[in-house]
Amino acid sequence: MVRHRRDEYRWEGVDVHPYKEEGGTHFKSITRQTLFHGDGDLAVELRYFEIAPGGHSTLERHEHAHLVTIIRGRGQVLVGDEISEVGLYDVVTVPPFTWHQFRATKGDHLGFLCVVSSTRDKAQRPGETELEQLRSSEPVSDFIRA
Amino acid sequence: MVRHRRDEYRWEGVDVHPYKEEGGTHFKSITRQTLFHGDGDLAVELRYFEIAPGGHSTLERHEHAHLVTIIRGRGQVLVGDEISEVGLYDVVTVPPFTWHQFRATKGDHLGFLCVVSSTRDKAQRPGETELEQLRSSEPVSDFIRA
Repeated sequence: MVRHRRDEYRWEGVDVHPYKEEGGTHFKSITRQTLFHGDGDLAVELRYFEIAPGGHSTLERHEHAHLVTIIRGRGQVLVGDEISEVGLYDVVTVPPFTWHQFRATKGDHLGFLCVVSSTRDKAQRPGETELEQLRSSEPVSDFIRA
Repeated sequence: MVRHRRDEYRWEGVDVHPYKEEGGTHFKSITRQTLFHGDGDLAVELRYFEIAPGGHSTLERHEHAHLVTIIRGRGQVLVGDEISEVGLYDVVTVPPFTWHQFRATKGDHLGFLCVVSSTRDKAQRPGETELEQLRSSEPVSDFIRA
């Protein structure tokens, strides 16, 4: 079965959703499209997230892992205490229970494919204690939006 | 952890391998790079395959499913008895036990990311009876390279 891309970063038969259904102010300018929901021996989902220039995903962690491939633009990502520049076709792995946040640079969209297990736990956001720990690193403190 | 793309369709710390270690004449002009090998709740592999102009993958089927995203060039794919044109960011799903083959068009590379379960069965190639069945459809018969 082929799901054709319709135009730039939209696919036929796929709706564009808000990043998180419950809303919130802990993320900014980001959309989600689900391209595949599998079961059986390939019980994973493939989602496409797109962050508009200057936007960011939620700073969060969870038990499930992420496998991300950048397919549009440029940005930065925090994984654990490491901040990296990312661009086209870079592959980002987020291990279980690791703080992470994606940001699009000012002039660029950041679009990425993300593979996750179809069955997964909910994301946790940092409490005051965890934010304090994260902010003990100056680069991390400058980077995060919480 | 970030695996940066090094140049066009090569990644840092990733070797370029033949498509199949055992060799053979049932495929043509195709390479493989393994970008991620996961376990735990994300027990999948992410591979990048690249077919040079005029080349093709093996005509095969297996119990495990494939989740493919085209990231370079153009080509055609057979899934079951359906032949489709595919291009940038099209998503191809190959269900269990479904005959499939990828071909790059004459003037283009065809490069794609492929997600599969880390633990999976071996591919089967068609025998004479199965080839006869496949060839009962004229478009399929014209398409396949076995």
